[in-house]
Amino acid sequence: MAKIRLFIDHPLVAGQAVPLDAGQSHYLSGVMRLRQGDAVAVFNGRDGEWQASLQEAGKRGGSLIVLAQTAPQQDPPDLWLIFAPIKKARTDFIVEKAAEMGAARILPVQTDHTNSDRIRQDRLQAHAIEAAEQCGGTFVPPVADLAPLSRLLDGWDPARRILWADESRAGPAQTLAGLPPGPWAILIGPEGGFSAGERARLSRLPFVTPVSLGPRILRADTAAVAALALWQAALGDWR
Amino acid sequence: MAKIRLFIDHPLVAGQAVPLDAGQSHYLSGVMRLRQGDAVAVFNGRDGEWQASLQEAGKRGGSLIVLAQTAPQQDPPDLWLIFAPIKKARTDFIVEKAAEMGAARILPVQTDHTNSDRIRQDRLQAHAIEAAEQCGGTFVPPVADLAPLSRLLDGWDPARRILWADESRAGPAQTLAGLPPGPWAILIGPEGGFSAGERARLSRLPFVTPVSLGPRILRADTAAVAALALWQAALGDWR
Repeated sequence: MAKIRLFIDHPLVAGQAVPLDAGQSHYLSGVMRLRQGDAVAVFNGRDGEWQASLQEAGKRGGSLIVLAQTAPQQDPPDLWLIFAPIKKARTDFIVEKAAEMGAARILPVQTDHTNSDRIRQDRLQAHAIEAAEQCGGTFVPPVADLAPLSRLLDGWDPARRILWADESRAGPAQTLAGLPPGPWAILIGPEGGFSAGERARLSRLPFVTPVSLGPRILRADTAAVAALALWQAALGDWR
Repeated sequence: MAKIRLFIDHPLVAGQAVPLDAGQSHYLSGVMRLRQGDAVAVFNGRDGEWQASLQEAGKRGGSLIVLAQTAPQQDPPDLWLIFAPIKKARTDFIVEKAAEMGAARILPVQTDHTNSDRIRQDRLQAHAIEAAEQCGGTFVPPVADLAPLSRLLDGWDPARRILWADESRAGPAQTLAGLPPGPWAILIGPEGGFSAGERARLSRLPFVTPVSLGPRILRADTAAVAALALWQAALGDWR
């Protein structure tokens, strides 16, 4: 049976109690049927993974006692994922997959062909937390609020390169083996692709590297996982 | 606006009519609002892509006139995907993504830790067709019926190597750059992982190469896309 892992947004110190909110308390006692003294693995995104034991679980909340650190903090490489939100289920999947694949930050952007003008940042952040709990990681990528792509590019630090999954560039994928190390971001377009204006601007920016993801047109969620996999294998923590 | 692409399981010959079933007919006239003479791109998985025009679309079906071939048939590399079905939505996603990523054949298998003992092969095949229509491909990977992994391995042709995404092998991913070309299959385990017996057998088989997909534990659908991306970039049609 897989061990239960819980993200707790609280400092983790051996011998100290940490609070459980009502949802976590219900999950541990009502869903997973844990009893007082049962083991739970906890992490807060900063201090690695800790062994804890259930102290109390009631309807309004509960508490755990933190015992000992079981794994050091492991942060992902400095890779961001920029994507244009699409249909709800697929947007959720992109955030979940970005967390599993080791993105350090997730930035939803509005593009010319993006229909949605708002996201539920709190819900997407909860998906990132759930993915971190499930994938054994100790890091939770922050999900930024929706911002226009043009504004993001206006204020972009050129020291961070952008790997642009350019869906118009069908054909053999570029190898990522020759890319320079350092901070990167992967940019995935919306289902309708980028507009001509966006394409022209992206093509001119010196810190943007366009890349093809093969001869078929990938959906945004597929493209996100594929690009993250190639980058992680070439430059990230899959090496 | 993206052009409308339709899979038609019928020989495609210039100047000849091909039938539309009731669903296709409703999609073209009712959903996409096409009228007689409007253009549709069609493919049958064997003869490339053809330009066609709508001849008739009624409630019980309709027909297209095939005009001229617009793209040659393009088959994916000889890569199969073997996976253990999981929850419905994620199983659908795996099939969709395998088709987008260029798998040539999709084989759902029952493993010791697979809960489902049946799949809707027809529904999964429909997902593969829809993905091919959407991704601009001319090939539709056949989805096999559910079979026990043990029986699949009993009759396995050792000339086809298996890339085994071994979730217990956390750590740096092996590079796939050194793998020999030729027919391959990628094997993705169920959410609970493979059993000890399955692991022992897979480890002994000379045609099985275990591979790690990084330090985090990926969900089966994420692992499928990531492994397909690495293989396509190293040995497939992303080179």
